[in-house]
Amino acid sequence: MDGYIGWSLALHQLAIGNEVCGVDNFARRKNVEEIGSWSATPILTMEQRLEILKKEYGDKVSFFEGDLTDPQFTNDIVKNFKPEGVVHLAEQPSAPYSMIDQQHTLYTQSNNVLGTLNVIYAIKNYVPKAHLVKLGTMGEYGYDHGLEIPEGFMEVEYRGKKATVPFPRMAGSWYHWSKVHDSNNIMFACKLWGLHSTDIMQGIVYGTRTHEITDNDRLTRFDFDEVFGTVINRYCAQAVIGHPLTVHGKGGQTRGFLALVDSIQCITLLLDNPPEVGEYRVINQFDEQYSVSELAQRVQALGNKRGLNVDVQHVQNPRLEKEEHYYKADHEQLKKLGFKATRHIDDEIKIMLDDLMDYKDRINEKRDSIVKVIKWSGPSVPLQKS
Amino acid sequence: MDGYIGWSLALHQLAIGNEVCGVDNFARRKNVEEIGSWSATPILTMEQRLEILKKEYGDKVSFFEGDLTDPQFTNDIVKNFKPEGVVHLAEQPSAPYSMIDQQHTLYTQSNNVLGTLNVIYAIKNYVPKAHLVKLGTMGEYGYDHGLEIPEGFMEVEYRGKKATVPFPRMAGSWYHWSKVHDSNNIMFACKLWGLHSTDIMQGIVYGTRTHEITDNDRLTRFDFDEVFGTVINRYCAQAVIGHPLTVHGKGGQTRGFLALVDSIQCITLLLDNPPEVGEYRVINQFDEQYSVSELAQRVQALGNKRGLNVDVQHVQNPRLEKEEHYYKADHEQLKKLGFKATRHIDDEIKIMLDDLMDYKDRINEKRDSIVKVIKWSGPSVPLQKS
Repeated sequence: MDGYIGWSLALHQLAIGNEVCGVDNFARRKNVEEIGSWSATPILTMEQRLEILKKEYGDKVSFFEGDLTDPQFTNDIVKNFKPEGVVHLAEQPSAPYSMIDQQHTLYTQSNNVLGTLNVIYAIKNYVPKAHLVKLGTMGEYGYDHGLEIPEGFMEVEYRGKKATVPFPRMAGSWYHWSKVHDSNNIMFACKLWGLHSTDIMQGIVYGTRTHEITDNDRLTRFDFDEVFGTVINRYCAQAVIGHPLTVHGKGGQTRGFLALVDSIQCITLLLDNPPEVGEYRVINQFDEQYSVSELAQRVQALGNKRGLNVDVQHVQNPRLEKEEHYYKADHEQLKKLGFKATRHIDDEIKIMLDDLMDYKDRINEKRDSIVKVIKWSGPSVPLQKS
Repeated sequence: MDGYIGWSLALHQLAIGNEVCGVDNFARRKNVEEIGSWSATPILTMEQRLEILKKEYGDKVSFFEGDLTDPQFTNDIVKNFKPEGVVHLAEQPSAPYSMIDQQHTLYTQSNNVLGTLNVIYAIKNYVPKAHLVKLGTMGEYGYDHGLEIPEGFMEVEYRGKKATVPFPRMAGSWYHWSKVHDSNNIMFACKLWGLHSTDIMQGIVYGTRTHEITDNDRLTRFDFDEVFGTVINRYCAQAVIGHPLTVHGKGGQTRGFLALVDSIQCITLLLDNPPEVGEYRVINQFDEQYSVSELAQRVQALGNKRGLNVDVQHVQNPRLEKEEHYYKADHEQLKKLGFKATRHIDDEIKIMLDDLMDYKDRINEKRDSIVKVIKWSGPSVPLQKS
């Protein structure tokens, strides 16, 4: 529960009266350090975080340091805490990180696939009625096929026969494929053992604040490097330090986006409305879709208004992806459950710019991590400071 | 190259004049021993096998003991031998084995996924033009969806837009899903690095003999236990020792089948006819399709003719699968490359029964391994001798 979403979600779940047992192996802190960066926000250690939470929530919060790839550790946690819901966020979450070299590919796929298998088994072993909420990514579907994207499944007619089948997955990095492997394994576990699970195909999350993140000592981490920082967050950090906003190639890459506070709202809604026993439910979780060029323009406009002098620079795209493509994805199920976005992207960008101005020096200190050289194709390039 | 197909293929490749570098970690021998069985045929040790081959082929044959999940080992093999083609058979190949318990699921998926990733990386690192032939399984497509099965890809029209997409995979065991994960990873490697690969969705292989397996000291392994023995082979072994042929449930499960000698023919054809650079080619590799009931009847009829007294018994199906279903799968590409089946199933069954009569005592000695209790669903049952 030490990550960007995990920490924010734990705060919210405690605030609404639920009991929370968190787990983390601090891989995110270590991996961001490995690539020469850190969180723009000066986050507290887990010890300090727990101290604050214990004062407010007492025994309602607990935490265990450990690794989900260890079956015994995972089994013990679930056996002892007996959760009603499990939110599994413990995956290596960076596409570029998975593309660095062989070792990072192996780490990403083994961490994600084996960790998820252990979570599935622990639930089956001790709390088979618990609802598993797993964070996947819209990237599992792929962006280059030109089809509309449903929520998980599609009805097809093929050679005169009809069937409802999983939408074919066409991911674009070793990381994204690890998420597909996990989705497949979870779908099978639901069929096999009657577990029930919500697999969230999440868009890209941005922002610094939630309802519970008001004081600065409750800040969640905020990555701005090219490996772990996602696109809007990275642009805001670039704007703050006077670094041009680096748009990959043409910038027509279109994705779904969601503010952090609304991601927490969605996950909570899904936890409160589990699927049927045995059901494997796939949810597309995002609010609006934008191209990355559009996002850069928004950050530029809002930054300039704030007196920053923001440039936009198109750089060579290290990724293997179409830079202009058709994109239309369903996202109806969350709306039916009552989801309403609460934060317009421009408002959230303004908040982020405000927040990040306080940490300009921290971003500047790790400025070199903003443009790395991790190329998708061709011989993999050892990671170097640019 | 110590396995059922690997050994047979190595003999054939050497016989037709190719150089062969084999790799094995002997997991198959160990895993079959673990579940209380052995090969019906008394296979030689790899040392003895090599001694025979070295006499005939000298330096054209080499062998290295090691594990493909070790990146250094895999890289070194490929770097030193510089193969033109790589046939990757080094996977945990048993669905029931993967279903035993958590540990066996983790072993199966980590062995298969990480081993395959290392093979892909080694090829990319040292011989990017080498043709990777990977053995997958028809089971990746699934059997319950009622659709005709193409070779890998299908054209769909969805909400008015057309695209050619991977046929959705709906596998039925942790093993089968590990093969899907591998297929997805290989498809991505072809796109990412321009590797070329043939992913063989193979049917169930049966038989004891190939053109090169004439003397008994060249016999390949033959598994008859319920975990590693595949269906026709198991029925023949049962017939020989007077054990009823155990048909799972109704027996309407329909699959594609192929004689061992023809599997070797197919793999050789594919090696000789690689796909284009960057192409990920999926081949459905089987000759005829049969239901398991039909197979039991064939083995019964041929066994009785031979003076055996063969019973067929329908036993509770431990698997999660439909016992009657529509099944129609394309298998055109191999025919276009010139493949013609050389062995009718009845002839192969006769040969098998002859061969296995010589090893009746060995089968009887491990008779307990024929019916195990590995259930697909419900709480997993620790493996016990039945």
